[in-house]
Amino acid sequence: METWDCIRARRNVRQFAEGSVPDEHLDQILEAGRRAPSSRNWQPWDFVLVTDRQRLEEQAQVWVGAGHVAKSAATIALVIPKADDDLRRDWAQYDLGQATMAMMLAATDLGVGTAHAAVNDQDLACRILGLPDDRVCAYLVALGRPDRPLTPIRKPDRRPFDDVVHRERW
Amino acid sequence: METWDCIRARRNVRQFAEGSVPDEHLDQILEAGRRAPSSRNWQPWDFVLVTDRQRLEEQAQVWVGAGHVAKSAATIALVIPKADDDLRRDWAQYDLGQATMAMMLAATDLGVGTAHAAVNDQDLACRILGLPDDRVCAYLVALGRPDRPLTPIRKPDRRPFDDVVHRERW
Repeated sequence: METWDCIRARRNVRQFAEGSVPDEHLDQILEAGRRAPSSRNWQPWDFVLVTDRQRLEEQAQVWVGAGHVAKSAATIALVIPKADDDLRRDWAQYDLGQATMAMMLAATDLGVGTAHAAVNDQDLACRILGLPDDRVCAYLVALGRPDRPLTPIRKPDRRPFDDVVHRERW
Repeated sequence: METWDCIRARRNVRQFAEGSVPDEHLDQILEAGRRAPSSRNWQPWDFVLVTDRQRLEEQAQVWVGAGHVAKSAATIALVIPKADDDLRRDWAQYDLGQATMAMMLAATDLGVGTAHAAVNDQDLACRILGLPDDRVCAYLVALGRPDRPLTPIRKPDRRPFDDVVHRERW
């Protein structure tokens, strides 16, 4: 898919159709995340790919807004070190956001729907994935066949362009 | 450009060639950011587009790593509200990361080079842009003609795939 179409076609997909996502597509999505830039190239992330149905259903319990994970074809858990100061915490979050968008666009390009979720019950999330004590499961990115095709959205539900964009100064 | 090529062609560009970026390209890059997803669609961001050379040179002083902003064709300042708690701070950073990657990929697709920078001297950054007291200039995304073409990178300088990616659990 052309990049500009892909950027406009990405949307949150929480209603997944039946069907798996081929392994080579999952790997390409993960590769997009691996390539994301990060502060001084520190690459603070680990990605845990989950496809086991029972584990997906358990993961869906980590936040009230993570229910769609249960029926996803696969979910990528974004794992980072526990932050020791505010600045590193900010950068890890910012860099995870970049990796997330790269993965979501790579997925859209392959016709795969995505919707990420925050993690509230950190103990549960870490237990499900067997994370070391020094790690946090920051977000989940659920993947699956979209309920309807991903095509460019003409009028996204966003603040108007001229409200968001300022010229030269505020 | 095809999305998968674009994802692999994006790289940090801090050496800019002569030449401006057309207004319609700048608007398309900003539109990509506007469309980014955010927590509960709160869209915490404002984008300040700067093209004035003197202002770009001033902006380059906000951090030791922002020198490339001075010679950029344009720079987008990413502005967010001052955070009142850790959770909203995390989400704003994460969402800004998503918007940043959308803008960088939209730029790459148009042959425009990008490199973002953190902001250390917040007072200076806010004064240059005339920001209200309740806002923070979180990052700068510099844009310009790349010194060499943006083409897919075969071996990115990243941790190995099998080191980053875990299957089913840690």
